Amino acid sequence: MSANGLNAIDRLVALLSKLPGIGKKSATRMAYYILDADPSYSRLLAEQLLSLHSVIKRCSRCGSFTETDPCPICSDHSRDASIICVIERPQDIRVIEESREFRGQFHVLGGLIAPLEGVGPDDLSIGKLLARIRAEQIREVILAMNPTVEGDTTALYLQKLLKDLDVEVTRLASGLPVGGDLEYADRLTLSRSFRGRVKV
Amino acid sequence: MSANGLNAIDRLVALLSKLPGIGKKSATRMAYYILDADPSYSRLLAEQLLSLHSVIKRCSRCGSFTETDPCPICSDHSRDASIICVIERPQDIRVIEESREFRGQFHVLGGLIAPLEGVGPDDLSIGKLLARIRAEQIREVILAMNPTVEGDTTALYLQKLLKDLDVEVTRLASGLPVGGDLEYADRLTLSRSFRGRVKV
Repeated sequence: MSANGLNAIDRLVALLSKLPGIGKKSATRMAYYILDADPSYSRLLAEQLLSLHSVIKRCSRCGSFTETDPCPICSDHSRDASIICVIERPQDIRVIEESREFRGQFHVLGGLIAPLEGVGPDDLSIGKLLARIRAEQIREVILAMNPTVEGDTTALYLQKLLKDLDVEVTRLASGLPVGGDLEYADRLTLSRSFRGRVKV
Repeated sequence: MSANGLNAIDRLVALLSKLPGIGKKSATRMAYYILDADPSYSRLLAEQLLSLHSVIKRCSRCGSFTETDPCPICSDHSRDASIICVIERPQDIRVIEESREFRGQFHVLGGLIAPLEGVGPDDLSIGKLLARIRAEQIREVILAMNPTVEGDTTALYLQKLLKDLDVEVTRLASGLPVGGDLEYADRLTLSRSFRGRVKV
């Protein structure tokens, strides 16, 4: 396509194609939309992208993405500090917050145990979770991993690890379809899985 | 979500949601992908977005997007300068070039006649097309609009307008599914529609 003089567009298409769920056709459509749109749109998007990594940090307590450290959830004293909801990724907080079912604290593992991909317990934020449970007088730990093979493995591992601590361990139960993805759960399904969580 | 401290992420999600075919869920997924990715990715993407409108101009001859004026296709003397393929949008050039079936020149209308949306012939690059046909000794004009109501209307309008000029007028025929979109045509279908174009 270089003979077409579309190098700058091609480079944009190549970059956009790396985004999850975006193929070459969608990326091309997006690139031409950006070209057709008012230049202020691409400038705003560029500025947002440039400031993103300097503005967004990891919360030193729960590991979520935040602009302040500790994050607003960790610093919110109206929340129940005795319950920790353990999640795989920072974006899981967003969908759980939208369900308005949970008013405790979070802990981001940063992944799931996946031996085939070379991810073991040491690669996750498990030591920090144990330290928090001991230091913060936690009475309940909710395991909120996706109901997948890796999620089940990780939940089982944590369950065994937490057995000897004086803490109730529960796991999100009914509602989440097996093999599905927490990120795409609807609000009611997620609410039900919080209400129907079972002791393990 | 402002209580979540995710303002910068929310702003990015809001901007990404404006892209065609991207809803809030997809935009959120993209934003977290960008956050998780190496900062060099968002920097490259931002730089590409910032330079886009200054690097890409409109070709003063055919109206396509280009880095040089006239564009590489208009300046390519190995192409047949006596055939003009009339298209709706600059991105249609890309898919036609990929079919490698056409070696003439292009002319971008910049839209289609759509009375309900207030787009009339005067809003399109039709005067310039007529001037090119007269000045450049064109022997054939291929109408390559999408086979939609607006595309048919525009083709019919141009067909009547060009009747009195000493030029053969053809239209892409077989192959393109009615109601479909040129942008998503596969290569073979598009090749066939070039080969099977019929005189109107």
